[in-house]
Amino acid sequence: MEKVNLAEKFSHFSGQWNPKIVGELNGQLVKLVRFKGPFVWHHHDHEDELFYVLKGSFDMELRDRTVTINEGEFLIVPRGVEHRPNAEEECEVMLFEPATTLNTGNVENEMTLTQLEKI
Amino acid sequence: MEKVNLAEKFSHFSGQWNPKIVGELNGQLVKLVRFKGPFVWHHHDHEDELFYVLKGSFDMELRDRTVTINEGEFLIVPRGVEHRPNAEEECEVMLFEPATTLNTGNVENEMTLTQLEKI
Repeated sequence: MEKVNLAEKFSHFSGQWNPKIVGELNGQLVKLVRFKGPFVWHHHDHEDELFYVLKGSFDMELRDRTVTINEGEFLIVPRGVEHRPNAEEECEVMLFEPATTLNTGNVENEMTLTQLEKI
Repeated sequence: MEKVNLAEKFSHFSGQWNPKIVGELNGQLVKLVRFKGPFVWHHHDHEDELFYVLKGSFDMELRDRTVTINEGEFLIVPRGVEHRPNAEEECEVMLFEPATTLNTGNVENEMTLTQLEKI
């Protein structure tokens, strides 16, 4: 049982759309990730996802509107809801979601990651 | 589906050791709470708990050591592990834990809260 310093963890990796696992509890994972540019439209059939912005901001595009999430804010996207994160500038985000969650949800393409690194 | 601004949520309540629910996903709750002074020694039989410090710092006392958790750091306390948060100065903390989690775990005393407010 060791505490986790988020800034220190971010110093260990670079790149975007490549979440790293930094914690696990009750079958849920805590992940750190950098966003930049648009991701892929997708949804998760069985998982709700929490996006908490640690640095910067990004737009969560939904089919009917866009929600800008700034530093110190989070959004929970319920299962089944189509979404696409889109970051004009690079931002740092903490994710909280079930261990079963695939990053691209119902979509499989070149951005799909089947195994995440634990750091 | 609305985003949550943590500073704005903290502006809606005062007092310590009185967590407020600000989000729910996958049977887990996101809570905001202020700590000051020592809490009560307890453990949770079935729930792991995550403590993320948003402002200030506190000591997580364990039976064999103490871990100081500072702003931008989190600690996951696994189920079954006795712990006591103790904050010299008031600090602000975000909790992730199952909806079933009782704040004082296996202990019932004057600090036990059987119902939490959602804000």
